[in-house]
Amino acid sequence: MKKLYALALLALLGTGQATDPLLKVRQFRRAHEQELLREFEQLVAIPNVAADTANLRHTALFIQDMMRRRGIKTQLLAAPAAGVPPVVFGEVRTPGATRTIIFYAHYDGQPVNPAQWREGLAPFQPTYATGPLDRDGKITPRPAPGQPVSPDWRLYARSASDDKAGVMTILAGYQALAASKLKPKVNIKFFFEGEEERGSPHLAEILSRYKALLASDLWVICDGPVHQSGRKQVVFGARGDVNMSLKVYGPRRPLHSGHYGNWAPNPALALARLLASMEDSTGRVRVAGFYDDVTPLTPAEKAALARVPNLDQTIRQELGFARPYGTGQSLVELLNQPSLNINGMQSANVGAQAANVIPTVATAVLDLRLVPGNDAQRQVQKVIRHIDARGYHVTAAEPTDAERAQYPLLVRVQPETGYNAQRTPLDLPMAQQVIKAVQTTTPSPVVVLPTMGGSLPLYVFEQQLNAHTITVPVANYDNNQHAENENIRLGNLWEGLETMAAIMLLK
Amino acid sequence: MKKLYALALLALLGTGQATDPLLKVRQFRRAHEQELLREFEQLVAIPNVAADTANLRHTALFIQDMMRRRGIKTQLLAAPAAGVPPVVFGEVRTPGATRTIIFYAHYDGQPVNPAQWREGLAPFQPTYATGPLDRDGKITPRPAPGQPVSPDWRLYARSASDDKAGVMTILAGYQALAASKLKPKVNIKFFFEGEEERGSPHLAEILSRYKALLASDLWVICDGPVHQSGRKQVVFGARGDVNMSLKVYGPRRPLHSGHYGNWAPNPALALARLLASMEDSTGRVRVAGFYDDVTPLTPAEKAALARVPNLDQTIRQELGFARPYGTGQSLVELLNQPSLNINGMQSANVGAQAANVIPTVATAVLDLRLVPGNDAQRQVQKVIRHIDARGYHVTAAEPTDAERAQYPLLVRVQPETGYNAQRTPLDLPMAQQVIKAVQTTTPSPVVVLPTMGGSLPLYVFEQQLNAHTITVPVANYDNNQHAENENIRLGNLWEGLETMAAIMLLK
Repeated sequence: MKKLYALALLALLGTGQATDPLLKVRQFRRAHEQELLREFEQLVAIPNVAADTANLRHTALFIQDMMRRRGIKTQLLAAPAAGVPPVVFGEVRTPGATRTIIFYAHYDGQPVNPAQWREGLAPFQPTYATGPLDRDGKITPRPAPGQPVSPDWRLYARSASDDKAGVMTILAGYQALAASKLKPKVNIKFFFEGEEERGSPHLAEILSRYKALLASDLWVICDGPVHQSGRKQVVFGARGDVNMSLKVYGPRRPLHSGHYGNWAPNPALALARLLASMEDSTGRVRVAGFYDDVTPLTPAEKAALARVPNLDQTIRQELGFARPYGTGQSLVELLNQPSLNINGMQSANVGAQAANVIPTVATAVLDLRLVPGNDAQRQVQKVIRHIDARGYHVTAAEPTDAERAQYPLLVRVQPETGYNAQRTPLDLPMAQQVIKAVQTTTPSPVVVLPTMGGSLPLYVFEQQLNAHTITVPVANYDNNQHAENENIRLGNLWEGLETMAAIMLLK
Repeated sequence: MKKLYALALLALLGTGQATDPLLKVRQFRRAHEQELLREFEQLVAIPNVAADTANLRHTALFIQDMMRRRGIKTQLLAAPAAGVPPVVFGEVRTPGATRTIIFYAHYDGQPVNPAQWREGLAPFQPTYATGPLDRDGKITPRPAPGQPVSPDWRLYARSASDDKAGVMTILAGYQALAASKLKPKVNIKFFFEGEEERGSPHLAEILSRYKALLASDLWVICDGPVHQSGRKQVVFGARGDVNMSLKVYGPRRPLHSGHYGNWAPNPALALARLLASMEDSTGRVRVAGFYDDVTPLTPAEKAALARVPNLDQTIRQELGFARPYGTGQSLVELLNQPSLNINGMQSANVGAQAANVIPTVATAVLDLRLVPGNDAQRQVQKVIRHIDARGYHVTAAEPTDAERAQYPLLVRVQPETGYNAQRTPLDLPMAQQVIKAVQTTTPSPVVVLPTMGGSLPLYVFEQQLNAHTITVPVANYDNNQHAENENIRLGNLWEGLETMAAIMLLK
């Protein structure tokens, strides 16, 4: 009996070195997995793309209900302008606490093209699978009450990982503490944004408007994936981000490619030539000055990078390509440089709808990632100067008849606002405490990353509130974030819940 | 009264120098415009894209009905393989005639993307407009019985011009003769193909199978637009045509452009670089040997080209671009060279659906137009060699895991069959008679063009039947052929009807 009991306890503990409070958290989660999944299904079933402001509001109200069910005082923080998805704010005061941690996640998601999702999936119809569907997973019904669910199962839906998993693990982490009568030593605040995927255009205004309410000692940002090894990760910064769209003009109406081909200029060719001029075959950006204003990494940051486990070969093989960009650098090294990515490119039609035409326009969307030292609008201007230097006339609006008549190469450039990169110093004491807290939840060494490749508006927190931020992601790395077939591994939800609870127990 | 009568007669004659028989043809048409339009509306309302074989068959049967209503003996000519849209054949014997003219048009249309059609239009919902909708035209209801209809009105629908206008004007031309008791001096045959826009993959088989039935002295091909000046046109050849699609591969699943941007290769960039390498900014193709095997124009052909009215400046202004391709050549000169056109290009999404991802694939469809001397598959091979020389591994199928692991640059190339160009000698006596016949229907000099820029499977007729072909188009040049918002100017239907009737009266 004694031996069996010890084995059962070990199983309960899993492989983590769970301390006593965390054991309670894990027990709570095991007992309530199915309820938590039901609630999460409801959360991800609400559409949350930027254009759908009604459903974004619906999402915000649903999150308020989630908070009220957990006894969290909540309010919506509105931007001065109407129609902006509100921030869902919440607060739990701890009598006698001198420090405050504010937990951030975002409830909006990237745009979706349902046609691109795998058969049997739809962006806002949460669907379970026994594993990743692009490997050996199979779609499976929602688990029956009492049915044990493997942590390797996935739930497929837009924002299942990015970033409703953040909202869910923060609130469920708090719930586990409260239900287990574990009292935090710090004040806890909650801040769930609704415009992150649009580039957080109203975040600065909201932060400035509610400065007093948002006072804190540290922002813990729950977004992005854990390390590809499955190891938990604490991240000290994020790249900045700014998008720009390019639209190249050809003939005013589509022309028969026989009757006019060789004579009427083809905008798809012009766009291809323009994009090709921007980057070489190693991904090196050829825009003048693109890498000029990068702040070098500190020796401590370089040392941290060197300690990050390198799984590049494994991931590359899994992703099925033969050669990464760069000239031998690792993934994490390359993420410390600014990037220029073609998010999408289109002119007329391909496949079954392709017709023998000279298209009228060709468009591309570029995504510029920024590192400390870069400025979003300065980076955009470098790209515009590059376009200009290639002989293009750049317009902000649809070209006029006069512009069409005058300029052989015409491109409409529409940059978005974007935001800059941010890095928190590695030696910030409270950040070091967060690393220790996360380490209590897992036997594997926590990966400490100076910056993540993805972007978060951390720069805005620093600028508006002079705030410190640290990012603690929970999603699996292979989550198809931003794309079709987005998913969360259920084990990552459960481990994320423990991570958030552990941080809330900071002394 | 007398003066009025003379004016009315002049109006009836229009500006053409109509001979007596043509006057009767015109009277018939004026009296039956509305009936003809009703029938044409029904014809263009039947979907006719290649994938929709059921409706292609429906179209063929509808055309047979049209022929039977006109007393034409008809049968369907099938290819040996099942599921191939049949040729609709018809025949009218003329007692004592020693010569036979066979009239060709095609009833299939280019693919459609209904989302790209203008508001109020749909590809298979014929819609009238008072003029071109991209200029001052307005959508207008079907004309009421007895309501006079301006020849400048347009009918919008897929294949309204390309090439159901050909089917309609040939059959209505014959109908006008029969109703006016005008007896042709030649035997007349009708041949309406159902796979032209797919590159006529079964035409050779059908021609060979029905060789005896299809015996003739001249094929009159009714397809393509009249000259941009509105002048009627007789064309002695067409470019050949072959399409090929390219698909470049990136990571197996779409990746977050932040977490992997700078490291995972972007297939949109690779495709842009590949396409950019194929053609310079003047449209000159940089594929090795692309222009090598072109048969030079004869002195007579060069002289004919010099006589073609040059409206390039006007069309360029109307189409809204500043500089045509080439180095100063005219449109008709450039059409005597092979071309490489990007029909369409796509990777991930743009616009509202654009997401911050590294796409998994990027595709393009190329359209190669050929001139005499070129061979379709030889031209395709030149492009493949070019791709190969740029370091790409070219595959015919989706790449295997081993290919993905081995080759940094991977492209799937899928060429279609295509066909070669053809040119009939300018001095062919029967062709000269056709020019004279067409000239009787119009006061403006008929434009004689050695080749059209567009393609027709004329080469196949020559190869299989040793047949002579001459092309007599009827559509307006600004018809959006192959694209969204395709339309026919009603006056072109009426003038086309007269053109076809005049050719049927050849002595």
